[in-house]
Amino acid sequence: MIKSRAAVAFAPNKPLEIVEVDVEPPKKGEVLVRIVATGVCHTDAYTLSGADSEGNFPAILGHEGGGIVEAVGEGVTSVEVGDHVIPLYTAECGKCKFCTSGKTNLCGAVRETQGKGVMPDGTSRFSYKGEPIYHYMGCSTFSEYTVLPEVSLAKIPKEAPLEKVCLLGCGVTTGIGAVLNTAKVEEGATVAIFGLGGIGLAAIIGATMAKASRIIAIDINPGKFDIAKQLGATDVVNPKDYDKPIQEVIIEMTDGGVDYSFECIGNVNVMRSALECCHKGWGESIIIGVAGAGEEICTRPFQLVTGRVWKGSAFGGVKGRTELPGYVEKAEKGDIPLDVFITHNMPLEDINEAFELMHEGKSIRSVIHF
Amino acid sequence: MIKSRAAVAFAPNKPLEIVEVDVEPPKKGEVLVRIVATGVCHTDAYTLSGADSEGNFPAILGHEGGGIVEAVGEGVTSVEVGDHVIPLYTAECGKCKFCTSGKTNLCGAVRETQGKGVMPDGTSRFSYKGEPIYHYMGCSTFSEYTVLPEVSLAKIPKEAPLEKVCLLGCGVTTGIGAVLNTAKVEEGATVAIFGLGGIGLAAIIGATMAKASRIIAIDINPGKFDIAKQLGATDVVNPKDYDKPIQEVIIEMTDGGVDYSFECIGNVNVMRSALECCHKGWGESIIIGVAGAGEEICTRPFQLVTGRVWKGSAFGGVKGRTELPGYVEKAEKGDIPLDVFITHNMPLEDINEAFELMHEGKSIRSVIHF
Repeated sequence: MIKSRAAVAFAPNKPLEIVEVDVEPPKKGEVLVRIVATGVCHTDAYTLSGADSEGNFPAILGHEGGGIVEAVGEGVTSVEVGDHVIPLYTAECGKCKFCTSGKTNLCGAVRETQGKGVMPDGTSRFSYKGEPIYHYMGCSTFSEYTVLPEVSLAKIPKEAPLEKVCLLGCGVTTGIGAVLNTAKVEEGATVAIFGLGGIGLAAIIGATMAKASRIIAIDINPGKFDIAKQLGATDVVNPKDYDKPIQEVIIEMTDGGVDYSFECIGNVNVMRSALECCHKGWGESIIIGVAGAGEEICTRPFQLVTGRVWKGSAFGGVKGRTELPGYVEKAEKGDIPLDVFITHNMPLEDINEAFELMHEGKSIRSVIHF
Repeated sequence: MIKSRAAVAFAPNKPLEIVEVDVEPPKKGEVLVRIVATGVCHTDAYTLSGADSEGNFPAILGHEGGGIVEAVGEGVTSVEVGDHVIPLYTAECGKCKFCTSGKTNLCGAVRETQGKGVMPDGTSRFSYKGEPIYHYMGCSTFSEYTVLPEVSLAKIPKEAPLEKVCLLGCGVTTGIGAVLNTAKVEEGATVAIFGLGGIGLAAIIGATMAKASRIIAIDINPGKFDIAKQLGATDVVNPKDYDKPIQEVIIEMTDGGVDYSFECIGNVNVMRSALECCHKGWGESIIIGVAGAGEEICTRPFQLVTGRVWKGSAFGGVKGRTELPGYVEKAEKGDIPLDVFITHNMPLEDINEAFELMHEGKSIRSVIHF
């Protein structure tokens, strides 16, 4: 048993508390990781709000980290002590029917227990004053030491700065992957991106990589427009500037609609707009944002019968262990400008400030340094 | 001006009236066709009911016909007098941005005027007692003589029996095409087909052609099950036999859901079931049925984020002039058993009986012989 500083969510809708928790050693197939840095993502805030039906309390949140292997459990062969790793909330076992399908990155190996906030054996490795604390998304990167299944770790080169590439553990990869893997945007295509948080900005990077001819960035906060343009947006649109539905605005701007659209917010009304601004005959809309529990998307079926396609993307369709090292390489080369996303750096003790900055729309990503 | 026997829909929700209408000669780019036979489709009944927001009255309905070219207007080069043709409610001009996209069969050439019940010059070729009568879906096959744009005619071999291959003008091609063109079902895939009318049965034929390993046919009318099995369905399911949602039944039957599903009814609740019975990670659901005006489809976005895809299909994604001759060839070879669909044959005078048989679920297709 080791001691670890951690930001614990003891109850929904309360600030995190920095305490010293107990961490059990890794069991068979598990790995102990020392987290060096972690991003704070909207999904953490969503779960903390209590709206997440899979949310358990008390829990150690955080799922966008970078760390170093400290110890391995029995049978672990793919990583060793000292390796640099990015925790994966979407595991990749390589053996389940999802991994072997060649059609999806949604590995089923640890899904069920991960959703319940425990390790594959059904128990937690965290405790505080003798009481168990739940894991979160299989990662719990808001703890200096955390335990993960081996299949939930992507090994990356030691040269890559963990306090930057940690962002590839969620938002940045999700946005880029949704464009490149899920939509497979082709050169010359037109693209609309709804919501210019971390994921939306990453989607702009993805669309730029794909050589989209037009990248329309949409947000009700015009403070996001400069950075959107800097990353490659060709047009910026504020729905508040128009009296008509935003889908009509986009359709007019593009002579019939865009080839691809991306919803990067989690708002079911925007998801509808994103679908309906797609071009008849071939336009595809990709939902990336996470909607509130019980919320539903709606449209007239005519939208689909006339050729639009409605899809979604989780972790950008990226298979973490196989593909994430390639993303790290792209970041190292400068093709993925991670610095743009990091608006704030702070120690673990200030983590609640990171949540506040996010809620106020003042940050893109705050990175917590342990 | 020639005289033509026609079944006219003078008003919504009234029986058709068999009268003699006047037909103007074809103008530039238009063709006069003598209809030899026509099927009666649910879409005709839908428009006749008054629920179709594009429905105009009085009109000559019918869009599933086979005929012979009687005269051509100025500039017509692709067909000549005596050619056998199938009218197309989805034209194929080969020049518009839809046709040249390579991504869709939804030609835009005559779409706007077709939806208004008139020819591309904005007028009708039909009149009765001096008053104009609207065209319907660019076809109006419930008239012995009808006028169509050249781009709305597929030329087919003269050997093919028009009183059978007329069914390739809508339902049969739509069902098969949705499986082969829109979903691109691959060998060994699992398929669920909701609704065993003409389109659903055709979808079974398509799934059999694609060598699907499992074809689950679903209907609340068990009277359809024998023919479904005859065409290749491996399982038949009546939702009324279960206390739980049909999507749960299908998911259990298939260890997680089907690879592809098809909604062949036009019921928005069934469209949701069809999506949600698809396998996480890759399942695709294709909407073929036409829903009532203003009706909407809904689901939780989580269904899409976890890898399901929602699509639609119009005329099975088939480009009529290019691909329909191939369908006729398949029917001639026996690969598409059209006889199975033709449960009733009758003269034009009995056309209202064809609508009654359809409403009562007693027919698959009635073919009207002029």
